[in-house]
Amino acid sequence: MDDTPRMRSMDVLTAEPRRGRAAARPAGRLDRWVLAQMRRRLQGIPLRVSLWDGTSTRLSDTPEVAEVFVKDRRTLLALVRDPAVAFGDAYAGGRLEVRGDLLRLLEAVYAHWQGTPAGHRVEQPRREPSDRERARANIHYHYDLGNDFYRLWLDEQLVYTCAYFPTPGTSLEEAQTAKFEHVCRKLRLRPGDTVVEAGCGWGAFALHMARHYGVTVRAYNISREQIRFARARARAEGLDGRVEFVEDDYRNVRGSCDVFVSVGMLEHVGRENYRAFAEVIDRCLAPSGRGLLHFIGRDRPRALNAWIRKRIFPGAYPPTLAEVAREVLEPVSLSVVDVENLRLHYALTLRHWRARFEAAKGRVAEMFDESFVRAWRLYLAGSEAGFTTGYLQLFQVTFARAAADTAWTRAELYR
Amino acid sequence: MDDTPRMRSMDVLTAEPRRGRAAARPAGRLDRWVLAQMRRRLQGIPLRVSLWDGTSTRLSDTPEVAEVFVKDRRTLLALVRDPAVAFGDAYAGGRLEVRGDLLRLLEAVYAHWQGTPAGHRVEQPRREPSDRERARANIHYHYDLGNDFYRLWLDEQLVYTCAYFPTPGTSLEEAQTAKFEHVCRKLRLRPGDTVVEAGCGWGAFALHMARHYGVTVRAYNISREQIRFARARARAEGLDGRVEFVEDDYRNVRGSCDVFVSVGMLEHVGRENYRAFAEVIDRCLAPSGRGLLHFIGRDRPRALNAWIRKRIFPGAYPPTLAEVAREVLEPVSLSVVDVENLRLHYALTLRHWRARFEAAKGRVAEMFDESFVRAWRLYLAGSEAGFTTGYLQLFQVTFARAAADTAWTRAELYR
Repeated sequence: MDDTPRMRSMDVLTAEPRRGRAAARPAGRLDRWVLAQMRRRLQGIPLRVSLWDGTSTRLSDTPEVAEVFVKDRRTLLALVRDPAVAFGDAYAGGRLEVRGDLLRLLEAVYAHWQGTPAGHRVEQPRREPSDRERARANIHYHYDLGNDFYRLWLDEQLVYTCAYFPTPGTSLEEAQTAKFEHVCRKLRLRPGDTVVEAGCGWGAFALHMARHYGVTVRAYNISREQIRFARARARAEGLDGRVEFVEDDYRNVRGSCDVFVSVGMLEHVGRENYRAFAEVIDRCLAPSGRGLLHFIGRDRPRALNAWIRKRIFPGAYPPTLAEVAREVLEPVSLSVVDVENLRLHYALTLRHWRARFEAAKGRVAEMFDESFVRAWRLYLAGSEAGFTTGYLQLFQVTFARAAADTAWTRAELYR
Repeated sequence: MDDTPRMRSMDVLTAEPRRGRAAARPAGRLDRWVLAQMRRRLQGIPLRVSLWDGTSTRLSDTPEVAEVFVKDRRTLLALVRDPAVAFGDAYAGGRLEVRGDLLRLLEAVYAHWQGTPAGHRVEQPRREPSDRERARANIHYHYDLGNDFYRLWLDEQLVYTCAYFPTPGTSLEEAQTAKFEHVCRKLRLRPGDTVVEAGCGWGAFALHMARHYGVTVRAYNISREQIRFARARARAEGLDGRVEFVEDDYRNVRGSCDVFVSVGMLEHVGRENYRAFAEVIDRCLAPSGRGLLHFIGRDRPRALNAWIRKRIFPGAYPPTLAEVAREVLEPVSLSVVDVENLRLHYALTLRHWRARFEAAKGRVAEMFDESFVRAWRLYLAGSEAGFTTGYLQLFQVTFARAAADTAWTRAELYR
């Protein structure tokens, strides 16, 4: 099995020529004017912004949580033009440094956006085409970075979605298994059930369902590296007779099933495909079927942070609960049975990942380079901040056909 | 305290002159043609339709659950023109009889509507004006029928919303208290919290919160009879210092609160007022506030059954989850924390109410008349059938500000 990481770097981020002379020159009137503009826009964030020559301003009267040190004028101007992308690229490229607590800085920024009334309107979600070829390219971009890379900082089962921590002290390993159990209970799996899993990562959940619930699973994924890994796992466990890993797009899911489950894929589907996604569920799901969608969501429609969309997750869009209810479930008359918001669990999951990532950063730098390490640090910390502040949500939506045998209460989830 | 029931009858339903001769005349070609039309439209419902002269047809090859006996041509024609309203009016007015199991008949009809693809489009929700005067008139129409009337068939605390049955064998009395507990736990009430309740019925829940959780409550209702009853209750229990019952529209809710809760009111708000409702919540709710909306809902947008809207609940509209998320919560950036669908609990609640109602039907007929008894029988059975078949849903939506201290898991709801 070939899972050698391709040595892809974030070197686009440092490819721009450095203008040494500009950086050395003291900040002038223009720079100070730009800084004042920035101060006005970000007023209230407990942050200090400093320029290459020591010019410095605080954005708030409250004690600052961190200092953003901008190393050259080009970066300063870029920050004003396109703050999200420029901040990420400059941080990754080393043209901007964060001195102090990166997480608290990002939390302060998200909390600021949450709090401003303008925040209700500022970002409009972009609809990007997401045909099958592009979907494959988008998924390849992120998920085929090499299994060895993910092995450095995910749990031992390689689960790259929000875990469920019965208590905050639960280990990441236990919490990923607890998430599987929580979802299986929500789905009321019974021996003999047929399950379709759309977007199965490295296959851990599909294998868990087959191993512990006596169900058969067809699990779909368009990431070649993940599917190859998952198949090898199924064979090694002797579960390949009960779990079929299919390297294909969710739109090609065929056959029927009692249960339809998708953990961490809907973010990558794109709103323009929700109707197609709904029709796949409707086509497959038995008259007494039920299912669950687990996805990163929002409180109101907004595009994903532009830098994350550009450099980390091309094509991703975290929907609101209303969008999923209206565009996926309503058109095919599926009932919402239960919704649970687990955003604090995703924040804690990310905290674990980030700690492991930092511990492995030397290895990551060897596999890629320093700019890659910084970009991923920013992505992990930014995601954690998104969940702690409520800028991002994590929804588990359990749904069912009207004729499904749903649970009388949710008490059995907690026994 | 004056809570004498006004002797309002459903006599509008029998006010049309009977055409004795038409009813006596044997069914002719026209009648049989109409019956064939009806058969085609309702094909597959396990039901027999019979006319005044014995002409009879089955709508399905499967054994019928009931027979609808149409007593005259006028009623037959009305059934084709406006089935929902005509069926209800004719049933209440005695111009149509159901022989067999009324509940199973209604379930078969709802299941049929659910199953037909056309069902996705047939009914468009009507937007009706719902200004304050009309709101008051609408609420008066249903809720001011006299406390003595409701006392005949509700539980001893007079709770006229879906109960929560920890097990199906729980009594109605216990299940209403269990519902209060379930909601209080979802709201994480703490001593000293201030609570606003929008739409408080006869006040039982407001009093429960104050009695058991040490909170202070301002509870709003525009039903005069209910508010008077609730105030007397608060005084009798010595809770009038901690629970204030305000006879006013939810739009006039003032002041601030830690918790905003509304059980069984949103159905009466009307979609055109969701934004105003959202702004009331946003205006009142503390920065760390949370709340809960408990309401009858739908899987997809559809008007309420026309007869129910006309004769039982003027102005009512049960929204979809997406409508509530998008039109109430999103505009004011409230996070959905938890959604629970309790439709089977409402079916069981209605089964209890219906049994008590049938046991008290002699008293009800004395208070009103036989047509009123039949109309309410149809309304209660129809609602039960709506919930058993999934034609209606019951959603409890817990929401919170981003800064609220939400529960780590839902386990504490089940301890």
